[in-house]
Amino acid sequence: MREIAVFSGSAHPELAREVCARLGVPLLPTRVSRFANDCLEVQLAANCRERDVFLIQPLVRPVQENLVELLLMLDAARGASAARTTVVLPHYAYARSDKKDAPRISIGGRLIADLMVTAGASRVLALTLHSPQVHGFFSVPVDHLHALRELAAHFRGQDLSNAVVVSPDLGNAKEAAAFARLLGVPVAAGAKQRFSDDRVTISSVIGEVAGRDVIVLDDEIAKGSTVVELLGKLRELKAGSVRVACTHGLFSQGALGRLSAEPDVLEIVCTNTVPIPEGERTDKLRVLSIAPALAEAMRRIHNGESVSALFDR
Amino acid sequence: MREIAVFSGSAHPELAREVCARLGVPLLPTRVSRFANDCLEVQLAANCRERDVFLIQPLVRPVQENLVELLLMLDAARGASAARTTVVLPHYAYARSDKKDAPRISIGGRLIADLMVTAGASRVLALTLHSPQVHGFFSVPVDHLHALRELAAHFRGQDLSNAVVVSPDLGNAKEAAAFARLLGVPVAAGAKQRFSDDRVTISSVIGEVAGRDVIVLDDEIAKGSTVVELLGKLRELKAGSVRVACTHGLFSQGALGRLSAEPDVLEIVCTNTVPIPEGERTDKLRVLSIAPALAEAMRRIHNGESVSALFDR
Amino acid sequence: MREIAVFSGSAHPELAREVCARLGVPLLPTRVSRFANDCLEVQLAANCRERDVFLIQPLVRPVQENLVELLLMLDAARGASAARTTVVLPHYAYARSDKKDAPRISIGGRLIADLMVTAGASRVLALTLHSPQVHGFFSVPVDHLHALRELAAHFRGQDLSNAVVVSPDLGNAKEAAAFARLLGVPVAAGAKQRFSDDRVTISSVIGEVAGRDVIVLDDEIAKGSTVVELLGKLRELKAGSVRVACTHGLFSQGALGRLSAEPDVLEIVCTNTVPIPEGERTDKLRVLSIAPALAEAMRRIHNGESVSALFDR
Amino acid sequence: MREIAVFSGSAHPELAREVCARLGVPLLPTRVSRFANDCLEVQLAANCRERDVFLIQPLVRPVQENLVELLLMLDAARGASAARTTVVLPHYAYARSDKKDAPRISIGGRLIADLMVTAGASRVLALTLHSPQVHGFFSVPVDHLHALRELAAHFRGQDLSNAVVVSPDLGNAKEAAAFARLLGVPVAAGAKQRFSDDRVTISSVIGEVAGRDVIVLDDEIAKGSTVVELLGKLRELKAGSVRVACTHGLFSQGALGRLSAEPDVLEIVCTNTVPIPEGERTDKLRVLSIAPALAEAMRRIHNGESVSALFDR
Amino acid sequence: MREIAVFSGSAHPELAREVCARLGVPLLPTRVSRFANDCLEVQLAANCRERDVFLIQPLVRPVQENLVELLLMLDAARGASAARTTVVLPHYAYARSDKKDAPRISIGGRLIADLMVTAGASRVLALTLHSPQVHGFFSVPVDHLHALRELAAHFRGQDLSNAVVVSPDLGNAKEAAAFARLLGVPVAAGAKQRFSDDRVTISSVIGEVAGRDVIVLDDEIAKGSTVVELLGKLRELKAGSVRVACTHGLFSQGALGRLSAEPDVLEIVCTNTVPIPEGERTDKLRVLSIAPALAEAMRRIHNGESVSALFDR
Amino acid sequence: MREIAVFSGSAHPELAREVCARLGVPLLPTRVSRFANDCLEVQLAANCRERDVFLIQPLVRPVQENLVELLLMLDAARGASAARTTVVLPHYAYARSDKKDAPRISIGGRLIADLMVTAGASRVLALTLHSPQVHGFFSVPVDHLHALRELAAHFRGQDLSNAVVVSPDLGNAKEAAAFARLLGVPVAAGAKQRFSDDRVTISSVIGEVAGRDVIVLDDEIAKGSTVVELLGKLRELKAGSVRVACTHGLFSQGALGRLSAEPDVLEIVCTNTVPIPEGERTDKLRVLSIAPALAEAMRRIHNGESVSALFDR
Repeated sequence: MREIAVFSGSAHPELAREVCARLGVPLLPTRVSRFANDCLEVQLAANCRERDVFLIQPLVRPVQENLVELLLMLDAARGASAARTTVVLPHYAYARSDKKDAPRISIGGRLIADLMVTAGASRVLALTLHSPQVHGFFSVPVDHLHALRELAAHFRGQDLSNAVVVSPDLGNAKEAAAFARLLGVPVAAGAKQRFSDDRVTISSVIGEVAGRDVIVLDDEIAKGSTVVELLGKLRELKAGSVRVACTHGLFSQGALGRLSAEPDVLEIVCTNTVPIPEGERTDKLRVLSIAPALAEAMRRIHNGESVSALFDR
Repeated sequence: MREIAVFSGSAHPELAREVCARLGVPLLPTRVSRFANDCLEVQLAANCRERDVFLIQPLVRPVQENLVELLLMLDAARGASAARTTVVLPHYAYARSDKKDAPRISIGGRLIADLMVTAGASRVLALTLHSPQVHGFFSVPVDHLHALRELAAHFRGQDLSNAVVVSPDLGNAKEAAAFARLLGVPVAAGAKQRFSDDRVTISSVIGEVAGRDVIVLDDEIAKGSTVVELLGKLRELKAGSVRVACTHGLFSQGALGRLSAEPDVLEIVCTNTVPIPEGERTDKLRVLSIAPALAEAMRRIHNGESVSALFDR
Repeated sequence: MREIAVFSGSAHPELAREVCARLGVPLLPTRVSRFANDCLEVQLAANCRERDVFLIQPLVRPVQENLVELLLMLDAARGASAARTTVVLPHYAYARSDKKDAPRISIGGRLIADLMVTAGASRVLALTLHSPQVHGFFSVPVDHLHALRELAAHFRGQDLSNAVVVSPDLGNAKEAAAFARLLGVPVAAGAKQRFSDDRVTISSVIGEVAGRDVIVLDDEIAKGSTVVELLGKLRELKAGSVRVACTHGLFSQGALGRLSAEPDVLEIVCTNTVPIPEGERTDKLRVLSIAPALAEAMRRIHNGESVSALFDR
Repeated sequence: MREIAVFSGSAHPELAREVCARLGVPLLPTRVSRFANDCLEVQLAANCRERDVFLIQPLVRPVQENLVELLLMLDAARGASAARTTVVLPHYAYARSDKKDAPRISIGGRLIADLMVTAGASRVLALTLHSPQVHGFFSVPVDHLHALRELAAHFRGQDLSNAVVVSPDLGNAKEAAAFARLLGVPVAAGAKQRFSDDRVTISSVIGEVAGRDVIVLDDEIAKGSTVVELLGKLRELKAGSVRVACTHGLFSQGALGRLSAEPDVLEIVCTNTVPIPEGERTDKLRVLSIAPALAEAMRRIHNGESVSALFDR
Repeated sequence: MREIAVFSGSAHPELAREVCARLGVPLLPTRVSRFANDCLEVQLAANCRERDVFLIQPLVRPVQENLVELLLMLDAARGASAARTTVVLPHYAYARSDKKDAPRISIGGRLIADLMVTAGASRVLALTLHSPQVHGFFSVPVDHLHALRELAAHFRGQDLSNAVVVSPDLGNAKEAAAFARLLGVPVAAGAKQRFSDDRVTISSVIGEVAGRDVIVLDDEIAKGSTVVELLGKLRELKAGSVRVACTHGLFSQGALGRLSAEPDVLEIVCTNTVPIPEGERTDKLRVLSIAPALAEAMRRIHNGESVSALFDR
Repeated sequence: MREIAVFSGSAHPELAREVCARLGVPLLPTRVSRFANDCLEVQLAANCRERDVFLIQPLVRPVQENLVELLLMLDAARGASAARTTVVLPHYAYARSDKKDAPRISIGGRLIADLMVTAGASRVLALTLHSPQVHGFFSVPVDHLHALRELAAHFRGQDLSNAVVVSPDLGNAKEAAAFARLLGVPVAAGAKQRFSDDRVTISSVIGEVAGRDVIVLDDEIAKGSTVVELLGKLRELKAGSVRVACTHGLFSQGALGRLSAEPDVLEIVCTNTVPIPEGERTDKLRVLSIAPALAEAMRRIHNGESVSALFDR
């Protein structure tokens, strides 16, 4: 079979190195230049000809820089006669732009998917897309993993006899219910109320939380304001201890510090799909590695083995 | 400006006639033939050259027949030099196939969208797609209407002082919340529990329903088994009267009779996006016409006026 | 080389089983579901990743159902990362829609070909397309087999000293002439006269048939009315015994019974490209299997051997 | 409405001039250069911006030069912001390459159609394509005219009481039958027999020709060898006078002289889709102008009027 | 005709305002949001339906942000049913990435052109692309203006009796020669010598410069190091006064200050295709407005008048 | 790996044979027919199924014939199920049409590139394209070789102590500079002056040539008038001996004879990318073979080895 060739953009080289170590293959070098006119040039610094190329690049901050870099890498791989180019997309920020909730905007999740295909993507390996429908935005095959297994493994080591999984939002409640089933515990969810264009409040929590050890689960945490508000509501409802879990720990605008400062939060758990600067980490943070799952999926994609067989819930 | 030319397939000519009456234009004739080998041929029996063509065809039972008929009409309009061809899709059945919840299946909602474009669709006018993300499955412009305004107008004539809107499912809870805001009443939602591959049960209703006049809201009702189960739960929780509302009244497998037979159901309200045979209708059924909304949107599309301006929630 | 993976839709599983038996490979399972809203879902229930996938699905009655099923299977195979997907199309009903003989109709044979490519077809294996030009409707490679060899083998076992091949129509006369050459007998053809829009009559038979044993050859027989009319003309012209042969035995609207009831018809011969219900079969029917030819072509396609070398006339 | 802008390539400027005279519009200038390296450059020497551009270029000898010239003109029109570009294709030589009658050849009629679309053709106006299926090779709208009306008008001025239309080939027999119906006379057809790879003979004429005034009808005459052979057969069968008619008078390799030298040929009739050098014309040749028909079709295309309404048989 | 609708992205709203003032149309509002996950959303805040939309966005620093913003605007305009969307691209930074001068890099100028088309660009209005071949990277019509006319008008007001135009590089020498012809003065050019991967030196100036008033002309100045080196060479060759002119004044890394500090530089002239922060401007800088030229081209594009007629050299 | 299959069109079979001999593979047969209507048919007369097909066809005189032949071969290879089809394009005449230097012309280099892709080209192997930007006209991978290495090897055998490389044109000066570096000698260039539309003159030579042995280098020589004019200028400037070198020796309109007749031209050197008829060759001509370079590149493309590694300057 064609050889595998793994490259990383600038977005998260650490994760790429860990994936390659798992796979037992070298992370091949790239050379990124920025010209005086602010244009980027990316050189894939190893032979791609007839190779099974994987480009690891989560679309994380700075999103636009990382996106254009990825598109240039895709085109470079195609021009360099790669047999197949798979985008490994541990986090796809634009997946949140998945509907047209205002007139005359782009559905960014669809547009960016089309741009990747135009630039040369043969397939995509994604993880916990914001909504499952985003899968359908791609016109190339997508393997869509999730990290519930990794998150569940972490919590299984704890006493769950009194636990409840709480989704901060009805929109993510199905995911939370699936996670709760994995842990064998009940589920609850916050219901949001929109008062005006820029003010949203959690009006109630549906499901029983009083006196319970709460595991808050969301797919991603950015500013964290929804979680903070949920924490207030949980206190009001006399919930017990709180642990916060998510797949994508974006933690923008000091969110990690703010959440860690909440005294009833015992732990904040996320995976390493998004790089977290050393200086922003807190004692309460636990980062689980998604590299083994990505590596195993890449191995199966490369070898033509079933991926669904592995990651079936 | 180019003249408008409206055609209807076999799916719902009654709705098409009503739309045309509203628009004050004739419904142009089509000739559908079925050959001895079961192939269809559709002739658009009026000049399409440089016209602004609209094809009204909800994808309703028999879905496959209506779909292929629509694709043949689209190709015929293109071959006949239509300036632009808009698919008017009051119901898009395949929108339910919006995610890959099993390995090696098609995301039908995306595939059928691509087929329409291949066959010649320039744009789509849709109504209450099963999820808002389905909008992003289309590579041509979509005007996406909803019928909450029409449904709300119906209920506003009733005493709502003690009412609550209940979504049978967390997945549709956001839509129910929007509807509840339109009516100025609270919202609740059923939470489903999956016991095995083929058995799903509503384990609880989150939100207050005891003693309340319930308006069950779903985007569509097909077999109606979820609603039936919700009714049981509502009785258990001592809810008051029940009215059932949905946009798309598919009512398959005797659903309408079954729901009407429930004594605590006072009324079943839907729109006419799906044709309901005379013989299946019951006294409790109220069908609201979506034709005025479709006609107004078509008029605006044809004249280049803003559609969002009109249908903004 | 990549492994072969053969699936069948609902159209003709028997033929698919016979082909697989010939190839010595398993017929892989598919799961077809019909939802309450009449939408189809097809799951390819075996790993397709990097496989050389063949989907066997003649477009036979119910054509629209079988077509949409095939399109869903194609998209599923693509999404499941098949290396290549070949549509095995023993009968392509829409090939008859090969020209624009009325204004503002679709050329269905071209449209459906485009839809298959949109849905993911990498190539097509077809058999006796209604006209050879239909090959050019496909934008992917087509291997176009015919069944004259199989039909000729059948008749070679009979006394052909006094035989003549008769085409019911001038349009198929070239094919009949080729068949006659294979058998070493002369050829004749019916000439149709159109009196009005819906009445066509065979006005004459050009070529000698008096006292001859006639082998009527057509590419397909649906309602059979042309053949029935030809039989009348042959009787008038004092032809001898009659055998009727075709590749595609569609036999709609009781055609098989009607033809079998004609006393001067000794035999009706077709291949198994179209399934014939047990209950409709008559004593005069002889069904020749096309499975060996399809299997050999599939073997050669899979192995990269020349197909034309085998099926050259 | 957008203004019309008509250009001609080098293939047949006389026809283009006649069409423009009929339309009452100027034939706009083009500048064709041939560089020292044998490349062509074509400049459309008048503003095309937002115009309704028509490019008149039959694909006649030298076919390859005329084809590439046409493709360069199409691309130039697109680059110059034409609103729409219609290829007026009075003769499409590659339409004869409409099937794959040998392995590993191109179906040229489909390929060239695709090239025209790639180069920028929005639509095509064609005349008597070699087979009606060639219409389906185009992925853009085609208006397909025929010249039977013009040919029939010519013969209606003659005594047809004893006439018969004879097709030299079964393949064109349907067209001949339609023509015979227009004239109200019977039809006959030659049946070819292939003896070896390079020797084809007309073995018989099916239908009555003895003592009849024959009108031979073919879609095109190139070398004319089939017609010459048919003439021998007609003499053998004691046919009366012979007139030869075709739409496309290619007359290659001295065909016109050879046919004119046949004493029983009274007249050779064709249209001016193909330019015939002054020096090759003979006294027996009658060239009917197709310009009025093309001009009327172009006028209707430009004005958005039905073309089928006019040219309906 | 369709109404014009002009929007600006964040790149250069001042230029957009000036263009609109010239055109006498309002600059329509856009709303750019940046989400907590760093994704952009752009809303075109005025009706686009059937409008002739122009999006003004030079690809200047920050290039990646401005590019993605532009792509989102293009998709929004398409989704909002714009009749036509023209990208007004006063500066196209990626045009410099116009060849593959290292293995396994993207030709960014082609890739970004393809991305714009994928996102919905119907046409492009560009100005002084780095090389004229970049025009051919676009698959949609491009109107390619240049600013030599504006630059020449500026210098014509000066004494040119002793002037010479000097191109810093042989690659731009043809452009410089054209400019010199406009001014009626001779031309010279610097010849670069590459010593190692990262060291390039101007080895000589070909043409006469001693004692001459030099006008250095380049298409763009970024870091300005080539110009600085040329200045040294000119001093060595005893050239007289120096004026520096370019179309695109990128002036990165303090280039403007550095050039202005050179005592023999009298003047630095550029156009306003690239915004220059107030704080970076120097006394020697003269910025010529390109807005009148862009406005006139947009007016002609909108009205279907010839653009080449205006901007012909 | 897939087997290699090499075919040649009519353009330059000799070069194809030499390449195949180098590769140690047979040159597979093609059959080119020209029909009576001037259409071409090309049959690839060997199995292509799943093969790695290479089609060798420089676009040389007669360019249009060779181009259409190539397009037919590409489509035939695709239809015959080639795994991959590489166009080997030792000379690409249309690369000179690389910019829009007049309104309403096609950029032929881009158009023809698109046509090749439409016809089925998977990739291209090109040699010394007229400008490096032409690489970006192709939407499939291009391996772009040059012949400077071969030309330099030839001259290295001569005394270069007093040599200078002279480019006839500033546009090719960069290439000449690279060649001069390879030889370790200085560079000079002619500067053209355009007096009117059809009169261009070399006004000066920039760089030192007096008393020097000149090696004139151009990418191609067609009519040779620029070189002839340069020779006059060189004589004026008292240059010494002259040798003329180019990659593509088109030598149209008696150029070879004319150049050879110049007494101060010692030698004319080109490669065999363009066939030169025996009768036109002169004693001063030296033709270097590019076959080894092409063969090595094809071997590496076929084996998935780096091509840039080999042909790096």
